[in-house]
Amino acid sequence: MPTYTAPTQDLQFVLQDMLKVSSQDIPGYDELDPDFTGAVLEEAGKLGAEVLAPLNVVGDKTGCKLENGVVRTPPGFKDAYDKMREGGWMGLDCDPEYGGQGIAYVLHTAVGEIFSAANMAFHVYNGLTHGAVSALNVHATDEQKATFLPKMITGEWTGTMNLTEPHSGTDLGLMRTKAEPQDDGSFKISGQKIFISGGEQDLSDNIIHLVLAKIPGGPEGVKGISLFIVPKFLINEDGSLGPRNGVSVGSIEEKMGLHGNATCVMNYDDATGYLLGEEHKGMRAMFTMMNEARLAVGLQGYAQAEVAYQNALSYANDRLQGRDVTGAKNPKGAADPIIVHPDVRRNLLDQKSFVEGARAFTLWGAHLIDRAHRLGDKDADGLISLLIPVLKGFQTDKGFEMCVNAQQVFGGHGYIEEWGMSQFARDARIAQIYEGTNGVQSLDLVGRKLGQDGGKHVMAFFDLVKNFIKENEDNAELKAGFLDPLKAASKDLQAAGMYFMAEGMKNANNALSGSYDFMHLFGHVSLGLMWAMMAKSSMEALEAGASNTEFYETKIATGRYYMARQLPATGMHLARIQTGAEPVMTLDAASF
Amino acid sequence: MPTYTAPTQDLQFVLQDMLKVSSQDIPGYDELDPDFTGAVLEEAGKLGAEVLAPLNVVGDKTGCKLENGVVRTPPGFKDAYDKMREGGWMGLDCDPEYGGQGIAYVLHTAVGEIFSAANMAFHVYNGLTHGAVSALNVHATDEQKATFLPKMITGEWTGTMNLTEPHSGTDLGLMRTKAEPQDDGSFKISGQKIFISGGEQDLSDNIIHLVLAKIPGGPEGVKGISLFIVPKFLINEDGSLGPRNGVSVGSIEEKMGLHGNATCVMNYDDATGYLLGEEHKGMRAMFTMMNEARLAVGLQGYAQAEVAYQNALSYANDRLQGRDVTGAKNPKGAADPIIVHPDVRRNLLDQKSFVEGARAFTLWGAHLIDRAHRLGDKDADGLISLLIPVLKGFQTDKGFEMCVNAQQVFGGHGYIEEWGMSQFARDARIAQIYEGTNGVQSLDLVGRKLGQDGGKHVMAFFDLVKNFIKENEDNAELKAGFLDPLKAASKDLQAAGMYFMAEGMKNANNALSGSYDFMHLFGHVSLGLMWAMMAKSSMEALEAGASNTEFYETKIATGRYYMARQLPATGMHLARIQTGAEPVMTLDAASF
Repeated sequence: MPTYTAPTQDLQFVLQDMLKVSSQDIPGYDELDPDFTGAVLEEAGKLGAEVLAPLNVVGDKTGCKLENGVVRTPPGFKDAYDKMREGGWMGLDCDPEYGGQGIAYVLHTAVGEIFSAANMAFHVYNGLTHGAVSALNVHATDEQKATFLPKMITGEWTGTMNLTEPHSGTDLGLMRTKAEPQDDGSFKISGQKIFISGGEQDLSDNIIHLVLAKIPGGPEGVKGISLFIVPKFLINEDGSLGPRNGVSVGSIEEKMGLHGNATCVMNYDDATGYLLGEEHKGMRAMFTMMNEARLAVGLQGYAQAEVAYQNALSYANDRLQGRDVTGAKNPKGAADPIIVHPDVRRNLLDQKSFVEGARAFTLWGAHLIDRAHRLGDKDADGLISLLIPVLKGFQTDKGFEMCVNAQQVFGGHGYIEEWGMSQFARDARIAQIYEGTNGVQSLDLVGRKLGQDGGKHVMAFFDLVKNFIKENEDNAELKAGFLDPLKAASKDLQAAGMYFMAEGMKNANNALSGSYDFMHLFGHVSLGLMWAMMAKSSMEALEAGASNTEFYETKIATGRYYMARQLPATGMHLARIQTGAEPVMTLDAASF
Repeated sequence: MPTYTAPTQDLQFVLQDMLKVSSQDIPGYDELDPDFTGAVLEEAGKLGAEVLAPLNVVGDKTGCKLENGVVRTPPGFKDAYDKMREGGWMGLDCDPEYGGQGIAYVLHTAVGEIFSAANMAFHVYNGLTHGAVSALNVHATDEQKATFLPKMITGEWTGTMNLTEPHSGTDLGLMRTKAEPQDDGSFKISGQKIFISGGEQDLSDNIIHLVLAKIPGGPEGVKGISLFIVPKFLINEDGSLGPRNGVSVGSIEEKMGLHGNATCVMNYDDATGYLLGEEHKGMRAMFTMMNEARLAVGLQGYAQAEVAYQNALSYANDRLQGRDVTGAKNPKGAADPIIVHPDVRRNLLDQKSFVEGARAFTLWGAHLIDRAHRLGDKDADGLISLLIPVLKGFQTDKGFEMCVNAQQVFGGHGYIEEWGMSQFARDARIAQIYEGTNGVQSLDLVGRKLGQDGGKHVMAFFDLVKNFIKENEDNAELKAGFLDPLKAASKDLQAAGMYFMAEGMKNANNALSGSYDFMHLFGHVSLGLMWAMMAKSSMEALEAGASNTEFYETKIATGRYYMARQLPATGMHLARIQTGAEPVMTLDAASF
């Protein structure tokens, strides 16, 4: 059975050494000194390793069961959920006015990595609630906030997001769910929603569904969509639970993975709903929480890769097979551990260097969101909005790939469910799909974000890279191993951007045909920048006489691996991009 | 539920237009005129589409069950197996002396694509039998041949391969299964073998296990391994089935996929075995069939991608979502089919151009095997031995990747088992692992095959590419779209080879650290060569006034896509290779 240990030292390194959270003047950051963040991560690590991780395989094997309209989550999930509630983990970064702890989102994100790596299917229940809380925070009336937030922040009630319908996924304009206005100001919601994570479960007393629907007579397409609060149980005036609302689970899906999380078909049949935000502005309301939701999914990608890597590494150290070609490393044993073989190391280092780079990118992204939300920093908001599709798309693609790589270390045993490596790959797979498929992420990046505010944010990113290189090029070690490859990769990214500007003007398909490659190119440059920053922080720590020299030296070596062996992908992506629309668009649909 | 249609026109194109099998002077090729191969493919296509494909989902959902020592294959498998037997499909390329049809291996391979795409788990039962027949063909005594081959060639009996033990996978020298010589010349086999595909099932009357074991007192390691024939039921003198032998199934594995095929733990307890070939030469006996076995697995990679692509294409034409940015293509509908979107096309064309390139590479490889076996062509044998790890490793990696891509076209529906796209990815995954993991393939390629016979075979490959380019560079269309990119990619491959020669001499790890990238680099150049050849054949057909111009024009456009959008990967692989051992070997195992 696979195991999990929270990488607290690595998380602390990103928070304290790289992001220097304890010296940032941002509301909620004042308590983020190393002792505090260390203690929080330590506690989260215990919960993750001891409570959540052991339920991961159970969740996969047992799955969720729908019986008489009730969803039973896997054995142990309810207990674990109660432990999380008791620990106050749901409300870590939530508004203290409604019972939250008001701690920085960046620390919530670091904790989220631990829970997600330990048991992704379990933590999705919490993730959806957190998303619903965020939406309510921004768009709800004070009364709505007072009614829903306190119970959701404690986890007594959970939340869901209802967007997709059978014929309407990416194209939400096709949505059919209706919201009929009632005399009392409420609405009657009718329609069917699919792929609703945690739409029904036995963990919480009530489920607050946020549902997109159309008010009859409103504008066509996405401009006529509104957002509604539809509780499973209506709420009495005194806050207690009232009668059951007209919403029920129709079925749960059999999926490739994420079995511990119930993916529900939800039927709304004259269910009572309350408008959240303005009429017909439902899409806008969704967008306000999209950065956080997509960052959380990008996190899932590398979190699964982290736990898969831990187990692959352990197997590579244990499994004896063959000999080091340069001389036996375990001469008394029947064979050497397979970690001696260069190709096994290549595989492990691809995983390790990706995971650590992605962790830095994700926490840096969370820090930008803190700046945006807590300081009102519009530049940070613009930058993270640009980067979110990269973070989500690139990290979930690579995260899945690395889970597959980790599985490969086990040879035939990786294919056997007993070893648990298959589950990491099967679970990670969904992250490439939900919260907008990665193809849609690339479209968002190239079609919307790149040109936003006159291209200001992508220029800011390039400036960031340029300035970092400029400020540090006196450091010869940093220059050779990190800044030079970063500069080359960044040039490829700029050339791709230039190509889109020049050729996309003539024909939008010249840009859209390269959107996926651009997303990956951008991902590599982003992780390259993260590695350069982490290497710099490590060198500074070593110069300052840090005691754990091996940790910092390993960090630098891992970064050098990423720069040398992963960044060369940027040239390939650029070459593909520069072929433009012709190879992609030339065939008629009928000729495929 | 997914569907499958055999791509008979594409298979015919490779056989007749590209390989020109009907004009090759090779034993078994004389009957391969277009009418004959077309009729065979047509019949195989019917069986695949109508009998095997409908059982694919059933096999996945039901799986195999072990009850009282008996394995029950999924409902319908036994009937389908009987239909295959009745059609004589098992012995298509087998020796007519023992009841085979003696038809070229290249046609057997084309038929194998159809069966494997239609139902991979089912066809694995046949694949193992075919492998065992090949081994018996080369190494068995006349008496052994007469006893086993006729029944195996009709499919009345099946075969298995028993190599792996719990602690001994890639490193077969660690094997513990013992073979004690008996006075009558037979052996008593004892030990445990794992991962035995079709080790037990209810399809055939007898199962002929080929088992690797050590005769006590023999040489240490792989040099002391012998190969044995161990029938499930012993054979009476008159050829009828005798008593049950000391071999039994211990358990069957729960796997990520390939549920319809029973993966067995086999226990040998003083089982009677008969030496196959010479004592202690078991590894050599295995090697003689390895090219065919690995080609068959490389085939599985693209065959799963083919069926996955067919379903993704159909979904992309049906699913309405969003609008073509250059103007609505389905203005009367609620939205356009998603195939209008450049990124969906990019995804589909990645699949299509890979599958068709891999099909050509595989059938070309099978043709080389025919030349080696039927003409005694040593150059063909050397060349295919070099290319086999590329064909197996590259095609199964890409095949899995393309199944994942096909799944992605379905968005959330791709993750739901009901749609069947998850199964293609889960089934294809095993092909990267069995018959030697792809890491081991890359080691075989760089550590053994590259330098074989003084590097003669890799030089022959380069000559082939060079001569093809030289002979055709007057064709301007071919040159621009195909020969120029092929030349550039081939240069990268040569540079990688030079790097290995120069730096691998100093330190073997400089070569081994790049083995995986080399395998992929070689794969791209190989498919590039195939596409150049297919484009040339298509242009010739068009010049000769072929009636189905759209088919040939599509072929050329698909090839141009591959050359433009896939071949740029070679530069990335070369850059990674040229970083050598340092980034890979620098960390201590303890520092990972």
